[in-house]
This record gives sequence, structure tokens and C-alpha cells, in this order.
Amino acid sequence: MSEFDEAIRLEQGDSPTTRTGTFTEDWMIGNAVNGGIVMAAGLTALGQHLAADPTETTRHVDPVVVSAYFMTAATPGGFTASTEVMRTGRRLSTGQVSLLQEVDGDAVERMRAIASFGNLDAVVSDRQSPPPDLPPPDECLSSDDAPPDFLQHSRFLDRVEIRLDPETAGWAMGRPSMRGIIQGWLRLRDGREPDTTMLALALDAFPPVAFDLGLYGWTPTLEFTGHIRRRPARGWLRVVLTTENLGGGMLEEDARIWDSTGSLVAQSRQLCGVRPAG
Amino acid sequence: MSEFDEAIRLEQGDSPTTRTGTFTEDWMIGNAVNGGIVMAAGLTALGQHLAADPTETTRHVDPVVVSAYFMTAATPGGFTASTEVMRTGRRLSTGQVSLLQEVDGDAVERMRAIASFGNLDAVVSDRQSPPPDLPPPDECLSSDDAPPDFLQHSRFLDRVEIRLDPETAGWAMGRPSMRGIIQGWLRLRDGREPDTTMLALALDAFPPVAFDLGLYGWTPTLEFTGHIRRRPARGWLRVVLTTENLGGGMLEEDARIWDSTGSLVAQSRQLCGVRPAG
Repeated sequence: MSEFDEAIRLEQGDSPTTRTGTFTEDWMIGNAVNGGIVMAAGLTALGQHLAADPTETTRHVDPVVVSAYFMTAATPGGFTASTEVMRTGRRLSTGQVSLLQEVDGDAVERMRAIASFGNLDAVVSDRQSPPPDLPPPDECLSSDDAPPDFLQHSRFLDRVEIRLDPETAGWAMGRPSMRGIIQGWLRLRDGREPDTTMLALALDAFPPVAFDLGLYGWTPTLEFTGHIRRRPARGWLRVVLTTENLGGGMLEEDARIWDSTGSLVAQSRQLCGVRPAG
Repeated sequence: MSEFDEAIRLEQGDSPTTRTGTFTEDWMIGNAVNGGIVMAAGLTALGQHLAADPTETTRHVDPVVVSAYFMTAATPGGFTASTEVMRTGRRLSTGQVSLLQEVDGDAVERMRAIASFGNLDAVVSDRQSPPPDLPPPDECLSSDDAPPDFLQHSRFLDRVEIRLDPETAGWAMGRPSMRGIIQGWLRLRDGREPDTTMLALALDAFPPVAFDLGLYGWTPTLEFTGHIRRRPARGWLRVVLTTENLGGGMLEEDARIWDSTGSLVAQSRQLCGVRPAG
């Protein structure tokens, strides 16, 4: 089983609406479990609930849209995903998931999301923006070249391989472009190919676009909404992050992902807090 | 009281978590109550609940981010908004709202949203995209010039005044630009000035961007996420809609709004279904 599938593996809980799993230190970034993994685990729980719902007969196996609100930072250890089916329809089925962890005997909500599932088999793109022009992965900046003390606190990067376009990686050498763009390649290190659930992780896996504005502090995700529009082809994903509105201690981060065939497969926007560095 | 404030006026329900109101035909567009009004009513209910919450001491009066899922079309008549406070924090407070209408004795959920409130008083913009270059409102295409049988089914346009940049309104004469952009001006006809709750309406008030791709059918909003980033100044709002991904019977619609001082005050993205024209 791949590292990603292991991370989002769930067991049926005490009721049809609860499932349990375990976050490990392997997916930490800084002091928290990566938000993309938290979302992917929540989506998996909701997808399993939908698949088991007797009114769901349409094989809505692909997450199509998810809106997640992050309330507290997830930490290594057990978690419970509590789900509710809100509506099963012909094209989409919609539900809600709360992801909770026990802290000092209390169930603390880490994330709550509403999401719709559909079936993205054989989607044809009628019109889409072309992928960015990137140097090949081997000519990009590897996360392996990051300072060892940074990597030590980012075990996430042992699982997810990121190669940054040198044109948008000046911030790593203290020279942010101030344009608000970071782009590059992404894949899972163990060779697990992308699918629609993995795209939810990939949309929230790159370094924060705030770095390219010279903001090196913590930029917690307050809200994240992702649209998964196609099943991705095998191979490297191309990721572009942009932002155009910084103020009031917040900025938005837009992500777009194209697959190896050049299809735009996913888009997201998140609202981030901007906290001072150090 | 302004037409907008009347539309979102609520009364306390049977419990601290329920409030009731009434949708009228005045805000219909086609066969449904406009989704922006549904959202604004839901946000108002959640804001009132937060303001009444004993743990809420930080005056989080402005909706900052809202993710709304539309399950069934709202119709004229009474509604109930059922709210839950999820978390009150220093910077943001977050909660959930379900908007229900009774149909044949059953409570049917029209919309469910998660939203965070904050305080946008005295926000300074550090960096933002400039507003679009638009002809003055008097040189734009007025919704008053639309065909009478169209206006008859869009009483919404008796409340909301829209002036479209002729450069992006060719679709109204059967000549869509196929670029996927619609831009123009917006204000409330009765002179009610914009505020952060009104921006939620304004983000979902323009003709669908799908029209500029020659798609004149119904494009129901499946999911809508809006970010309100500043309190808007008095006067006309500038609205720009774009899209870059159409496929699988869905497209995304991005909206951006600048106020009369040229500040970027709100952004949104919605996932729309694409249904064939009548």
C-alpha cells in the first residue's frame, strides 16, 4: 500500500456515520499534519459514507468540490471522521464531514468540510487555460536542496517531491520576486500515481505563495475550496500558485494543477492568515 | 428600510439557533430566488447568532469568507435559518447555517454554508490588482435595455442596477466574445449603499459568465465561495467575471469586485452546472 493510501486508510467506527484513522508524523509540516492530508482523509470518509448510502446509486466516486474550514491544527494520533449525507442527486451527491481528535478527553474539531462527489470518468474539456511553460523537472530546484534543519521539520517533503521553477524560487535564496507566483512540478515519491483524491493533497502541498512576497512567517489556511475537474493522467503534475490581494492580515492563494497531458485538472483558492516570521 | 435590508430581515425563532424570514418575488431571477439573497439572509442569521454568543466578545460583524452549497432552488415564501457556532477566536469566528423552506409539510434544505466572520474596520490593502478600465456607467449597456419578456422574469433587476461594458456584452446581441469575460458596474437601485453583507449579493448578481461562451442555458450554482476583504466605499461597484475551465458539464465562475475608490473588496469562485438552453 502506498504511503498516501496508508495515510488516508479508515476503519468503520461505532456507527455508519463515523470512521477512524491515524495521522502519523510522516505527513507533518512544521508542528501540524499537512492540511491536504486532513482534507484527503475527510473526503475519503465522506466518499465511503456516500458509497454505502442506499439512495446513492450513481457511483459518485470522485470528489468534485470541497470547502474546508480549518479550526485547529491536526496532530499525530488517532482521529474520527463524522459524516452526513446531505443530498444524493443524479449528477452530484453532497455531504459534510467533521474531523475530530481527542485532546485531554475532549473531542476537538480540526476541520469541517462540505463536499460534492460526482463521476469524472470520461470528462471532455471544452475549453481550458494552457499549462505553464516550465523547465523540465531535472532543471528545477529540488526540495532536497533545502537546508537540512528545514527538511527535518518538514517530513511531508519525504513523501511529496516538489521541483520549483527557478524563475519563481528566488525567495528560497532571500530574493522573492514580489510578483506573487510560485510554480513547479509535484509527484508522490513512492510512485503512487495521482487520482482525484490525491489532487486535494496536491492543491495544498506547495510552499506558501506568500514566500514570493517576502512573507516568511506562518500562513495558516483558514478556508480552502478546491474544484477537481478531471481525473489526472499518470506522471508529474504541474502546479501554479498565485495571489492578488494582500491586506488586513490575510491573503488568498490560488492553485491550478495540470496533469502530464496538459489538462487543467484542479483549481483551488484558499484564504490564509499572515503571521509575522519568527 | 431599504429593499435589501427588508429582504434579509429576520425574526428570532423558537430557539437561539433559529431565525425566520420571508423571500418575496421581488428578488426572483427566472424561477428561483437569487442565490445571493439566500446567502445574504443566511449570513445575517449566522452573524446575529455570533453576536449573541456569550463567548463572542470581539465584534466580528463582517462576513469574511463564506462557502455555500445550493441543494434546491429557494422560492418565495417563509424560510428558517438554523445556525451553529463552531468556533469563536480572536481574529475570526466560524459557524454554519442551513436555510430551509417547508414544502408539503417537510423542511427542505435550500442552502448550507460555513462562514467565518471578522472585523474589517480599518483594513489596509498592502497589495492588490488594479480595477478594470471601464467606460462610465452612462456609456455602458443598461439592463433596462433588455427585452421586456426577459425583464418580466427577472424582477431581481428591478432591485439591482447593472451596467455592462459594451466590450463584454456582445453575447446580449448574440455575439459572445468567447473569451469568457463579463464586466461592468453594479449598485442597488434604491440607493442603499454597499456593505460587507451586500457584497455577498453583488458577487452573485451579474449575468452568468457562461453567456460570453455562447452558453445561454441554465447555469445553476452548485457551490459558491466568497472572500470579503474590505468594507466597500459608497457608490458604484466594479464587477469582473471570468472563467478558464469548461468541461464535464461544469464551469467555474470567478468574480472580483472593486469599490468606487478602486479597492479590491471581494473575490469569489463558484462551480456552475452547464445545462442546455431551453
